Amino acid sequence: MLSLIPGPSELYFTVHDHLRKAIRNSVGSLSHRSQEFETIFRRVTEGLKELLSIPAGYHIFFTGSATEIFERSIQNLVEHESFHFVNGAFSARFYEVARQLGKRPTRMEATPGTGFREVEIPAQTDFIAVTHNETSTGVSLPPGFIEGLRKKNENALVVVDAVSSLPYPSFDYHGVDSVFFSVQKGFGLPAGLGVWLVNDRCLARAEHLLALGISIGSYHNLPTLYSHAVKNQTPETPNVLALYLLAGVVEDMLEKGIERIRRETEYKAAILYHLLDQHPVLKPFVAETEYRSKTVITLDCGKHLAEVKEALLHRGFLPGDGYGEFRKNQLRLANFPTHSKEQFEALTDALNALKF
Amino acid sequence: MLSLIPGPSELYFTVHDHLRKAIRNSVGSLSHRSQEFETIFRRVTEGLKELLSIPAGYHIFFTGSATEIFERSIQNLVEHESFHFVNGAFSARFYEVARQLGKRPTRMEATPGTGFREVEIPAQTDFIAVTHNETSTGVSLPPGFIEGLRKKNENALVVVDAVSSLPYPSFDYHGVDSVFFSVQKGFGLPAGLGVWLVNDRCLARAEHLLALGISIGSYHNLPTLYSHAVKNQTPETPNVLALYLLAGVVEDMLEKGIERIRRETEYKAAILYHLLDQHPVLKPFVAETEYRSKTVITLDCGKHLAEVKEALLHRGFLPGDGYGEFRKNQLRLANFPTHSKEQFEALTDALNALKF
Repeated sequence: MLSLIPGPSELYFTVHDHLRKAIRNSVGSLSHRSQEFETIFRRVTEGLKELLSIPAGYHIFFTGSATEIFERSIQNLVEHESFHFVNGAFSARFYEVARQLGKRPTRMEATPGTGFREVEIPAQTDFIAVTHNETSTGVSLPPGFIEGLRKKNENALVVVDAVSSLPYPSFDYHGVDSVFFSVQKGFGLPAGLGVWLVNDRCLARAEHLLALGISIGSYHNLPTLYSHAVKNQTPETPNVLALYLLAGVVEDMLEKGIERIRRETEYKAAILYHLLDQHPVLKPFVAETEYRSKTVITLDCGKHLAEVKEALLHRGFLPGDGYGEFRKNQLRLANFPTHSKEQFEALTDALNALKF
Repeated sequence: MLSLIPGPSELYFTVHDHLRKAIRNSVGSLSHRSQEFETIFRRVTEGLKELLSIPAGYHIFFTGSATEIFERSIQNLVEHESFHFVNGAFSARFYEVARQLGKRPTRMEATPGTGFREVEIPAQTDFIAVTHNETSTGVSLPPGFIEGLRKKNENALVVVDAVSSLPYPSFDYHGVDSVFFSVQKGFGLPAGLGVWLVNDRCLARAEHLLALGISIGSYHNLPTLYSHAVKNQTPETPNVLALYLLAGVVEDMLEKGIERIRRETEYKAAILYHLLDQHPVLKPFVAETEYRSKTVITLDCGKHLAEVKEALLHRGFLPGDGYGEFRKNQLRLANFPTHSKEQFEALTDALNALKF
């Protein structure tokens, strides 16, 4: 059975080999203060910087989840007001976290399934939260949208939730101050690790809040994460096994080549959307092509949900349910680097063979 | 090589089998919203309640680390003042977290290597933090000490850091409101999971703070953890693999029997302390027997540190270094459930054979 759930996803196809190697090398009992750990930390951070073409002046930190980074980024980067682009459940949660932490968030809402057109950002905003890929609906913001935000408010930090799109998107990091993701989506790893990329402007903001007497948290505040990361360490005992697996998968992806991963992602998305655009019954939930996610593809099955799901299961595909209220008539199909072109060809064949 | 580092520790001897089973059963890609996950969650919480004889009215939640629980417990349970028993690096860090989160902590300090004698707790304290087993020095508080705190301040919540002692200690939970630990110590699992036990008084306190408008955090505040845990779920995508491994190890420990684990822990500690008490050169760092930890045994090697360490390595034992400034002349030896009586007999033989 091939899982197409958009996270926790089908494991990257090399993960079980790396796990077996971890057992042989006793990685599970490795001290996080050992040189071997520092080597793993460096392999992950240097590998990610190469894979994603991250420029100098950016730093990579680790948390327990991307959900934790919602909280840490608000805590460390917002003095008064954050501004949120909300078009689904996860961008809405980011907004809600700011409220729970006692900040004054504002938001611009779009109907689920669509993007944002006329963008107005309050002048006093010091933080712009944008969800590159809404996992709940399969809406992805078009290239240039995120990078254009900086022009609208130069003092605000631009913080990008790329949980279910990386490593696919190629961001222009000069327009982005922070990006985060979790490893159980596009990287195909077991859940339990969040990855947080920040630049020097973010570090300066956290120091500024601290100087003002605003609490930025304890062990996972940015100055503490930074002071450990420069020594290839973490403040707490981290999920060492997950870091080891991530190091391996990043190296495997580097060997395959990010351009090839991107081309294959686009090919797989193209054949699936092509089918949906021509299908008499199944429809893509995201109508406008510019907002369609390449990595989380959402099908509107109308009243045929049960039979579509059953047919896919019968052919060996485990589709993801729609999110929340959408589970009544939608399915979500992950298109991650672990899913091969051949598997997506077989998937479109399976959908094509459906008779209603 | 047998690791005697007090965490991340030698894995419990069944962990690699459970990991292989996890690979066969695709646990790494298991959805945290599936029934299979809920079964794992229930196996862990019900198993821990049975293993540790936890009474009704207590709930078990999961975080990324015990360090996270320092922060979450202060955030959710302290209105104004916390009080901390500080006798080493980890109890000092708990105090520091309260300061970083903007509370007004006070503390009672004891010299590292000793316990606390005359205890005075400020009347206005609403939270008493006590470290059952100081991992940095090998001091453990004697039975009854923690349970007696409730009598000194009935309104305060008693919160116990049992990171490096559980599952060994048998607490009287009627005198304890919260206990926490991480899995990479006595449970012998890969790092990346904190376990947080709280009672209904803790839940009521968090609700009280929330009603007062005090921020108690977002996804990992107690009401949110509780509302998910009653459905055998977690707010965020958790470290599913670690929960699966913990379920297996807790069941293995139940099969072995907690009384047998406790008896063996005491036997292993007894033969090691017996040797140290009679040894011409090596000394136990903790002089008073009532404060000696059974699970983290600290050796003062004086000027012979290098040769003791080398001799142990030569015999297949990897000792833990002393913590911080103590690494100059101390070694720490973990005595966890995964370490067998035979291994500890061989360890004492190795120490006995040393000639200075």
